[in-house]
Amino acid sequence: MSDDDPTRSVPRVVVAPDSFKGSLAAADVAAAMADGVRSARSDADVVACPMADGGEGTLDALLASWGVAPRAVDAPDALGRPGRARYGISADGRLGVLELAEASGLPTVADVAPRPRDADTTGSGVVARALLDAGVAEILVCLGGSASTDGGSGLLRGLGVRLLDDDGAELPPGGGGLARLAAVDDAALHPRARAVRWRLAVDVTNPLLGPAGAAAVYGPQKGAAPDDVAALDAALARWAAVIGADPAVPGTGAAGGVPAGLLGVLGADCVEITAGGLLVAEAVGLPVLLTGADLVLTGEGALDDQSVQGKVVGTIAELAGGHVPVVAIAGRVELDAGAVARAGLTAAFSIAPGPVPLETLLPRTAELVRETAAHVARLALR
Amino acid sequence: MSDDDPTRSVPRVVVAPDSFKGSLAAADVAAAMADGVRSARSDADVVACPMADGGEGTLDALLASWGVAPRAVDAPDALGRPGRARYGISADGRLGVLELAEASGLPTVADVAPRPRDADTTGSGVVARALLDAGVAEILVCLGGSASTDGGSGLLRGLGVRLLDDDGAELPPGGGGLARLAAVDDAALHPRARAVRWRLAVDVTNPLLGPAGAAAVYGPQKGAAPDDVAALDAALARWAAVIGADPAVPGTGAAGGVPAGLLGVLGADCVEITAGGLLVAEAVGLPVLLTGADLVLTGEGALDDQSVQGKVVGTIAELAGGHVPVVAIAGRVELDAGAVARAGLTAAFSIAPGPVPLETLLPRTAELVRETAAHVARLALR
Repeated sequence: MSDDDPTRSVPRVVVAPDSFKGSLAAADVAAAMADGVRSARSDADVVACPMADGGEGTLDALLASWGVAPRAVDAPDALGRPGRARYGISADGRLGVLELAEASGLPTVADVAPRPRDADTTGSGVVARALLDAGVAEILVCLGGSASTDGGSGLLRGLGVRLLDDDGAELPPGGGGLARLAAVDDAALHPRARAVRWRLAVDVTNPLLGPAGAAAVYGPQKGAAPDDVAALDAALARWAAVIGADPAVPGTGAAGGVPAGLLGVLGADCVEITAGGLLVAEAVGLPVLLTGADLVLTGEGALDDQSVQGKVVGTIAELAGGHVPVVAIAGRVELDAGAVARAGLTAAFSIAPGPVPLETLLPRTAELVRETAAHVARLALR
Repeated sequence: MSDDDPTRSVPRVVVAPDSFKGSLAAADVAAAMADGVRSARSDADVVACPMADGGEGTLDALLASWGVAPRAVDAPDALGRPGRARYGISADGRLGVLELAEASGLPTVADVAPRPRDADTTGSGVVARALLDAGVAEILVCLGGSASTDGGSGLLRGLGVRLLDDDGAELPPGGGGLARLAAVDDAALHPRARAVRWRLAVDVTNPLLGPAGAAAVYGPQKGAAPDDVAALDAALARWAAVIGADPAVPGTGAAGGVPAGLLGVLGADCVEITAGGLLVAEAVGLPVLLTGADLVLTGEGALDDQSVQGKVVGTIAELAGGHVPVVAIAGRVELDAGAVARAGLTAAFSIAPGPVPLETLLPRTAELVRETAAHVARLALR
């Protein structure tokens, strides 16, 4: 078991954790895991791929995995005020990432009383325009945390689409105004808008309309009172009818209905709804990296039923397909060993070194992730 | 990774944990570990060897490992009152185990005010006599928890030795009376007393006398006031001088000086002070079991510096010698991964599934040991 045995081949390890929410970003978790593996096996070839599930933190995880700096553009916030939004382009220039929350997120408008009928995604359209201008072939759209319920109408306006009322006048911004929508004019749509592939990271199955729809389910957390919900639901129905979007498609209700707008206006040929975890995994080349790996470490703050259903940990277990051991390291392991095995994971370990309260554990997260990874690597790479 | 692959050989696993003190006996920990391993690999050949370090619980661990029932004999307690004491004999009849605390332990006399000068080990001598009568070749003496500071004089009296004062009269029982010892008469010593090998499980290095000796260090916890300590120390000095025991030998101060008495009266040819963990490991045949094992699980309540210095976990790591992976499972892991590796362990994991308080963890110990063992087995036995 000596590190100096010259006959032993170099072990290849992929570390691909989600963030430990509220405690440590995915890039920091990955760094701690990589550190731990190297402390156990100094000769290991470790590739760090911070992961995300398409929601908050996905832009940062992709930037870290790609090893590129964020770009930024002036883009209006969800209420049309001046703002700035970050975005990312992969090192080879092929992939762009647009995180809706950057320009159109709730935090950008948290300083004023909510205006759920007015909030829109025009700022994200400006970011999308920057990506199209840069020549990317694929735009990964991360949908979590938006302030708007505008069916993606703002995003399309940012790309040049005009939304007209009965008099041929442009509608004001926001989902509420869509109730008066008569026609959509895409004559000035960005010329590359239908030449790229739009991949939308969606981890919910809500339809656009009705009691499980965008307005009813997610409206209230954006400040929508019951009458706002009703108005927005009716407006989105109008929007879907005019652009020819099928409001029953699962996932179209995500992020205030952005998927419905993109599908309806740009068309299903270039717009695809996909699971966030898988999208990110593919964006960082994980399927290729897993081939020939001797060990994969993944993990997240709390390993539970959700983790193994489309989230990062479950996605990685699925991609590994039993050909390489996949070990989850988590702050809290809520699944029993049987459920862990059924999810395709080899094993799961908590970083808790004993009976300790959360407030003691939190500040030690990085150190304990490193320790646990070291133990796992020593056991797995013999 | 299927359990049904007929080309895969049956993995051999040895589970050899100490108790989780205050929570789960070694036999129960071992059963939970074995359960966990089998849940991960139903085809595994699992040998359960509950371990102990020669202190409290050693008799039970040996009985469980040997798969034999306890025997019992009427034997006076530490104050000479009627009592009953358990002991053990290995299935092949070769090894006997005498746990001092059974007949001569503090709990046997906890119902009355302490009489530190009078308490003695005569009851343990009665147990030893039973073992000699049964024909064992080796007596393993577990020294923890005694109520007496009698230099083992009671144990020897139980075997037929007479302790005489200047007038040739027998001394009263207890360490205090040894101050008046003039001569030792071993004419009636059990005929097999020097024909067997006495192996004393000692995990302290205290000498018999002085500020680090039996009376000064362990007397107070047996109820000795300062004047008792002084009197007992002087009496033990007399005892050592008469029987020709070297009071400076490390470990002779254990258990009120029992090692000094046995070494002095029976002689170094048949009495050996040894580390408890190693003694128990050998008594259950662990060195042989480790040969050819694919995985060894050990553990204890708290894995700390002490654990890896002569206690169960350290002993097992040492015996395995790096030829087989040894994983420690503990309630609390207080060593970092580097220290764990330096101790010869492959890895160590806490059973804590996340940030939980001790009172939540304790009642779930068996379940969580089982879970952790399952994860370790899945990772180690691929």
